[in-house]
Amino acid sequence: MEDVTIPRTHPRYESLVTREKIVEGFKKGIVVPHGLIAHGRGEALDYILGEKTTEYAREAAEAAAALLMLSKKPVIAVNGNTAALVGRELITLSATLNAPLEVNLFHRSREREEKIRDYLTSLGASKVLLSSEEHVIEGISSARRFVSGAGIKTADTVVVAIEDGDRTEELVKEGKNVIAIDLNPLSRTAEKATITIVDNVIRAIPLLTKLCQSYREKPREELLDILKRFDNRENLRRALAAICQRLERLAYLDKV
Amino acid sequence: MEDVTIPRTHPRYESLVTREKIVEGFKKGIVVPHGLIAHGRGEALDYILGEKTTEYAREAAEAAAALLMLSKKPVIAVNGNTAALVGRELITLSATLNAPLEVNLFHRSREREEKIRDYLTSLGASKVLLSSEEHVIEGISSARRFVSGAGIKTADTVVVAIEDGDRTEELVKEGKNVIAIDLNPLSRTAEKATITIVDNVIRAIPLLTKLCQSYREKPREELLDILKRFDNRENLRRALAAICQRLERLAYLDKV
Repeated sequence: MEDVTIPRTHPRYESLVTREKIVEGFKKGIVVPHGLIAHGRGEALDYILGEKTTEYAREAAEAAAALLMLSKKPVIAVNGNTAALVGRELITLSATLNAPLEVNLFHRSREREEKIRDYLTSLGASKVLLSSEEHVIEGISSARRFVSGAGIKTADTVVVAIEDGDRTEELVKEGKNVIAIDLNPLSRTAEKATITIVDNVIRAIPLLTKLCQSYREKPREELLDILKRFDNRENLRRALAAICQRLERLAYLDKV
Repeated sequence: MEDVTIPRTHPRYESLVTREKIVEGFKKGIVVPHGLIAHGRGEALDYILGEKTTEYAREAAEAAAALLMLSKKPVIAVNGNTAALVGRELITLSATLNAPLEVNLFHRSREREEKIRDYLTSLGASKVLLSSEEHVIEGISSARRFVSGAGIKTADTVVVAIEDGDRTEELVKEGKNVIAIDLNPLSRTAEKATITIVDNVIRAIPLLTKLCQSYREKPREELLDILKRFDNRENLRRALAAICQRLERLAYLDKV
């Protein structure tokens, strides 16, 4: 028998407990081994970020909410990790926007797609789309090229989180807006997305939902104004600068 | 059937291929799900570091090699991840130093300990110690407190890699020298170790072995001199400063 008790005295107790969500998803067959590794990358990047939503992430989320409110056909992409970490929260965002959830996997299998759909349905999701080999986003070399004709293929705006790089670029090439939630401000996804929210999905998805709800009555001009004021490149630069400052501060405060 | 082909055009192809080693170890039952997450954290930190051995990591490795050559009873701790990633390289270091390998697990089970031992033996290891509930390092709240009486319990210097925090502190409290290989210069392990090598084990273990081999004929005074010149706190500060500089450079070079 394995001793898996996490001692409460462990300095990263909270992070260890959050981690169990993804391990749980793995045990359910929703998350693949590579998804666990991806979660670890996210943990490290969030740790460096300070494990909180920064001011620039909030501004990016505001622009993203404005864009979503202006979109005619937004779609929310879901993978194993996001289903395991923020399944319920994605359903709330989907309901708020009346936008479908679409399962889109790098390590694609019909069986896992269906497991994720069933899991989301069990949490209350009403519309979960799966990929189809009939509908392809050209230029994506991974299995993520297969999408739903009723979803990503015909969407004007796609929300993606915990991504590999090439999908975002190709979606943008197809004329779509991409809102990416990515903890790495240097990633290709972050660089290529229309709007990048450098934050943990656990915080970013509820924030995005709250903002969309509060923008419901906002006139179109105001939404356009929020969008116009936002510069993704500049925002990423600030994210990076803030990370540097934080690391330097930690060094000065003698916390090493 | 799952489509797991990694497209060669993927910008992180090399990192993805390296990653397969740990997934392989997971399939063998050597690596636990939490080990995959830990590997992901390492990937992110190494990415930020630039995925190469820095000058300060080299200096730390030189001090570590000097300390190992001066030690009477060095022991090399092994866990699932280090066995999967650098099993062969740890055996070479063990042979170079005539120091036993000791399996020491956070997610401890006798079955997994034996799997790791058998795996290392299959690679050519001659002496692999397992933990015993008779021998305890007081103050460690995880299962890592159980050690071998012929190994860590009576060692003067312990090499540890891919660690949780409290073990290093308690080993040092017991009067042992701890050489830690840790990609996070802000971790408790990094802070508490006698010598911290901020580098990926994949690069650090072969470097450490090479240095130990080249120090074989070095007089004791020279080894003591290398040790005396090394300041772990200062080295960690430089590691952090270098990371900051690298991030800033990336930002300026417009690589975001």
